[in-house]
Amino acid sequence: MRFEIQAECPATGARAGLLHTAHGVIETPVFMPVGTQATVKGLPQRNLIEDLDARIILANTYHLFLRPGHELIRQLGGLHRFMSWPRALLTDSGGFQVFSLSSLRKITESGVTFRSHLNGDAHLFTPESTVDVQLAFGSDILMALDECLPYPASHESARDAMRRTVRWARVAYSHFQTRKEQAEIASSLFPIVQGSMFRDLREECAGELVGLGADGYAIGGLSVGEPRELSLEVAGYTAPMLPRDRPRYAMGVGMPEELPEYVALGVDMMDCVLPSRNARNGYLFTSGGRIIIKQSRYRDDASPLDPKCPCYTCRTFSRAYLRHLFQAGEILFSTLATLHNLRYYLDTMRGIRQSILLGGFPAFLDSVRSATVE
Amino acid sequence: MRFEIQAECPATGARAGLLHTAHGVIETPVFMPVGTQATVKGLPQRNLIEDLDARIILANTYHLFLRPGHELIRQLGGLHRFMSWPRALLTDSGGFQVFSLSSLRKITESGVTFRSHLNGDAHLFTPESTVDVQLAFGSDILMALDECLPYPASHESARDAMRRTVRWARVAYSHFQTRKEQAEIASSLFPIVQGSMFRDLREECAGELVGLGADGYAIGGLSVGEPRELSLEVAGYTAPMLPRDRPRYAMGVGMPEELPEYVALGVDMMDCVLPSRNARNGYLFTSGGRIIIKQSRYRDDASPLDPKCPCYTCRTFSRAYLRHLFQAGEILFSTLATLHNLRYYLDTMRGIRQSILLGGFPAFLDSVRSATVE
Repeated sequence: MRFEIQAECPATGARAGLLHTAHGVIETPVFMPVGTQATVKGLPQRNLIEDLDARIILANTYHLFLRPGHELIRQLGGLHRFMSWPRALLTDSGGFQVFSLSSLRKITESGVTFRSHLNGDAHLFTPESTVDVQLAFGSDILMALDECLPYPASHESARDAMRRTVRWARVAYSHFQTRKEQAEIASSLFPIVQGSMFRDLREECAGELVGLGADGYAIGGLSVGEPRELSLEVAGYTAPMLPRDRPRYAMGVGMPEELPEYVALGVDMMDCVLPSRNARNGYLFTSGGRIIIKQSRYRDDASPLDPKCPCYTCRTFSRAYLRHLFQAGEILFSTLATLHNLRYYLDTMRGIRQSILLGGFPAFLDSVRSATVE
Repeated sequence: MRFEIQAECPATGARAGLLHTAHGVIETPVFMPVGTQATVKGLPQRNLIEDLDARIILANTYHLFLRPGHELIRQLGGLHRFMSWPRALLTDSGGFQVFSLSSLRKITESGVTFRSHLNGDAHLFTPESTVDVQLAFGSDILMALDECLPYPASHESARDAMRRTVRWARVAYSHFQTRKEQAEIASSLFPIVQGSMFRDLREECAGELVGLGADGYAIGGLSVGEPRELSLEVAGYTAPMLPRDRPRYAMGVGMPEELPEYVALGVDMMDCVLPSRNARNGYLFTSGGRIIIKQSRYRDDASPLDPKCPCYTCRTFSRAYLRHLFQAGEILFSTLATLHNLRYYLDTMRGIRQSILLGGFPAFLDSVRSATVE
C-alpha cells in the first residue's frame, strides 16, 4: 500500500492524497461507509459504486467472525468475493465490539475471552488471532487488536489499557510480518493509538506505535461517550504525533459538520455508523440542516429531501413520499434514506478534498463553521 | 384504454396482446408486482423499470386510503407522481382487504363499514366512494367494490354476495361514467366476477357484468383458501364467459408453474404477493425448483441462486452470501430476493408471451407441466 500526498493546506493540517491499494485507489480524505455484516445495511453493492462511488467500505471483524465465520469466508474466496465488493475493504480488530457488545468478556495478557451476543458461545480474540481472521477475510486494511475504554476512564485504567494496546500491537505486527513472509499478502495492518483523553498517554502510545513503521495509524478511543469538543481536542494533539507520510484514521467519527474539522487536524480517513443508522431512524442530513422525516410538517411536502443533492432519492422522491414510507415501516425508506445520507457524507468529503486541492480549504472550513453556528 | 390481441393459441385459450394505457403499453399476458403501500417492498422504482421492466404494478386502495390518505395523494398530484412511478398502475377496490384485514366490518346495501387495522378508526367504503378514492389516486385501472367470500362458502351466501357484488358494480360503473362526463379521465373501471366455486353463480355474475360493457373484467374470489386445482377449474369455466376482446384479470394468483395454466384458460393479467412475500421469507423460485435459503446446505454454496437467471442477484451473489444475509436479518436480503423472485415471474410471463406469439405455447405448457411433475 502506498500513500501519496497530493496537496497540503498551508494554514491547517489538512491534506489531500491517494491511498493505493490492491483493490483500487482511495482518494483522501475519505469517509468509509460501515458494512458491519458484509453489507452496508439496505444498499446493494452496485449502488455503493454507481450512486456513491464509495472507494472503500468497512466491515466488522467481530460480527463476521461470529457469523458466517472467517473460515467460511476464506473458503469462499475472501470477503471481497463473498460479498461481491471489488473495491477496498477495511476491517476493524473486533476489539471495540467485544468491549461494547459481548458479555462476560475477560482480558488477559494474551487476549480477551468473550461470549457471542448471538448464542453465548465462548471465544478468544488474541492479537495474533484477529490478524489471522482479517487475513482470512483478505481485508486491504487490517486493524490491530486494541483495548478501547468508555468515557470517562481514570488515568490509571487508561494507562493500563493503553500499554496493553501497545504490547498487543507489537505482537500483532510481528505476527503479521511473519504471515507476510509466509505468503503474498498485499494488506496493511494499522495499529491504534489509545490513551483515553490523556495527552501524556496518547503521546506515549503514539511514540511506541510509530516505532513499528506501519503503513498507517488509527486514532481510537474517540466517540466513546465524551463531549464532541473533547474528541476533536484529543484528535488535534494526537494526529501530529503520527507520521506525516502515512494515512491517519480517526475511528468512529463524526457528524457531517465535524468532517472538515477532523480533516483540518490532519486526519485522512473516517468512518461512522451515523449516516446509515440515522437514515434508518428517519434522521436525514441535508444542506439545509437536519430533517426528522416523521414530523408532520413533511406530510404534504412535495419538495425533495435536499434540493441541492443530486442523489437518486433527492432527484426522484418528495419528502411527503419519504415520510409515508417511514411511517408505513417500508424497507424502501431505509434504502432511499441510507443512499442519501451516505451521499451527503461522501459528497461533503469530496468537497473538502477538492477545496484542499484547489487551495481553498480554510474558506471551506469557515463556511461550514458559520453555517453550523447559524 | 385499448386492448389489442396480437396472437391467439389455436389449441388453448391463450392470447398475447397489448394493453394501451395513458401510462404506457402493457404486453400481455402480464404479471403485476404488488406495491401495497405505494412501494413494491424492498425495490426502488428504478429497479422495477431497469431490472424488471415491469409495465404495470398494483397498489392497495385499502392501505393507501388509510395511510397516507387519498386526499393527500390527490393533492400531491396522484399516485404516479406521489411514488414517482411513470408506468401503469392498477388499484384494487379495497374490498378484499376490508374483508380480510379490518375488524368489525358490517355490510349494508350501500357499502361496508369497517375499522382500520392501524388505529381502529371507523370508515365506510361504498361502490361510489372507492371509485372516487381510486380516481384521487389517478389509477389507470380501477376495480369495482366487490364482496369476496372465503372458502368454503355456502351456495346461499355465495349467491347473496355475488348479487350484491353485481349491484355494487352497477352503482360503481354508473358513478364512474358520471365522473368521466365531469372530467377528462383516461382510466378504466373493471368489475369483478364473484360467485365462489359455483358455476351457476359465476355464470349469472358474468352475464350481468358483461352488460356493463367495461374495458376489462376480473375474476375474483380465487386464492381464498380453496385447493389450487379448484381455482383453476373455476377460472377455466369463468374466463370464456367474459368478452374475448377485453383483458381478463385473475386476481391473486398464482404459483410460477400456474402462470401458463391461467394463460391457457384465456387469462391476460395476474397479480400475487407470493413472489415478493416469499422472497422476504427466504423462499426463492428458480429454474431448478424452490430454494429455502436458510437450509444449511447453502451455507458454503458458491453457486448463483439460479444459474439460468440473468438478474442482478443471480449475476452477482452466491447462495452462501444470500443465506448469510438472510440469517443475519439484513435488509439487503429482501431487496436481492425480491428482485430475483419478481424477475423470475416476469421472465416466465415473457416466455409465455413469446411462445404464444411464435405459435409454440402448447409445447411451452407441456414442458412446464412435465417439469412440475418431476
